[in-house]
Amino acid sequence: MAARALVFDVFGTLVDWRSGVTAAFRASGLDGDPEELADDWRARYRPILEEVNAGSRPWGNFDELHLVTLGDLLSERGSDLPVDERRRLVGAWHLLDPWPDVQPGLEALRAHHVTAALSNGHVALLVDLARHGDLRFDCVLSAELAQAYKPAPEAYRTAARLLGMEPGELMMVAAHAWDLQGARDAGLRTAFVDRQLEYGPGSAARTDPDADESVADLLELAGRLAG
Amino acid sequence: MAARALVFDVFGTLVDWRSGVTAAFRASGLDGDPEELADDWRARYRPILEEVNAGSRPWGNFDELHLVTLGDLLSERGSDLPVDERRRLVGAWHLLDPWPDVQPGLEALRAHHVTAALSNGHVALLVDLARHGDLRFDCVLSAELAQAYKPAPEAYRTAARLLGMEPGELMMVAAHAWDLQGARDAGLRTAFVDRQLEYGPGSAARTDPDADESVADLLELAGRLAG
Repeated sequence: MAARALVFDVFGTLVDWRSGVTAAFRASGLDGDPEELADDWRARYRPILEEVNAGSRPWGNFDELHLVTLGDLLSERGSDLPVDERRRLVGAWHLLDPWPDVQPGLEALRAHHVTAALSNGHVALLVDLARHGDLRFDCVLSAELAQAYKPAPEAYRTAARLLGMEPGELMMVAAHAWDLQGARDAGLRTAFVDRQLEYGPGSAARTDPDADESVADLLELAGRLAG
Repeated sequence: MAARALVFDVFGTLVDWRSGVTAAFRASGLDGDPEELADDWRARYRPILEEVNAGSRPWGNFDELHLVTLGDLLSERGSDLPVDERRRLVGAWHLLDPWPDVQPGLEALRAHHVTAALSNGHVALLVDLARHGDLRFDCVLSAELAQAYKPAPEAYRTAARLLGMEPGELMMVAAHAWDLQGARDAGLRTAFVDRQLEYGPGSAARTDPDADESVADLLELAGRLAG
């Protein structure tokens, strides 16, 4: 069965979180290497989502969770920032630039497929990113609508249900094998996008040998799916 | 407080359901005047939603409810149609044309406001309509996400919550005073759009004296909000 809808991970896959968050740390004047601070903050993302999925932490959206993980980061480093500055850093996640192929790639893919964001970020955050980057989706879906974070199967299955499709009619597009494995576990098809610069020029090579498609960017995916 | 987001009713306000449904009835070969059949079917819409909101009928999406009301319409007329033909008629609601001002109007309004569909139609149906009419929203919201149909306040408040805004930061845009009254009851601002042709050339005049804005179409609304 060919995919009728493409659902896109956002942070890392469509937008370059590291450049934007690094710039925000640099502007904050916080002691420390801004790139290292950005990586440290991002590394706290999956553990706190796992706490939510495990039920040991109540539901929080990305703004709320980013504020918690930023507090943890600061206190572990013996640093502090006023609350306004913390909120400005949390707000930086709303204004991240897309990778250069994303705007035209989404347009090309939308011609033959329903396209939707499917991010762990909340709807309001995704709307801000789509407006900031001029990214057009047919709709914005989010783990928020399932109240379960990826890779929990409900996150993917809720997306299929809202699109009125079987899970196997959706293809999850992501730069992260853990996300694609979660999608496969929920019955979706998968496409791996190799975002070599997600963690900067020295990023470790990544791959997902189990993905149905493996591409360098969205324009290559559009060509592959049209072929 | 000025509106930061505009949320749009869809059936009647953005798309011309009557022309599309009339054409589908004409193609079906069913006995009777196709326009009258379309009006009859549409008239069964609010009563069945009220049954759902009152809890006397389980949740059903528009495809499911349209199939029920079509069955009622046929049996009351002593008519019948095969199930495939019934499904084709239900599918006609996915392929309705927008009014001529809507595509450019949404583009103009999106420049300064977050724009979202906020329909009683389910997400998959709204995605089909948006793709069919080349309508661009920042996101697609629906009563389905609240599991409560407009004019229940939860339908509007869920939209505000998902957009990360207070209800008063949203303006509901609709051609129906009952929808706008529901929106006001939930704390939203309102704009009435005068769709004089919703029920054909002989439609009764409508107005909503309580709306914050009252316009002939979306382009007039864009001018009004920019002024």
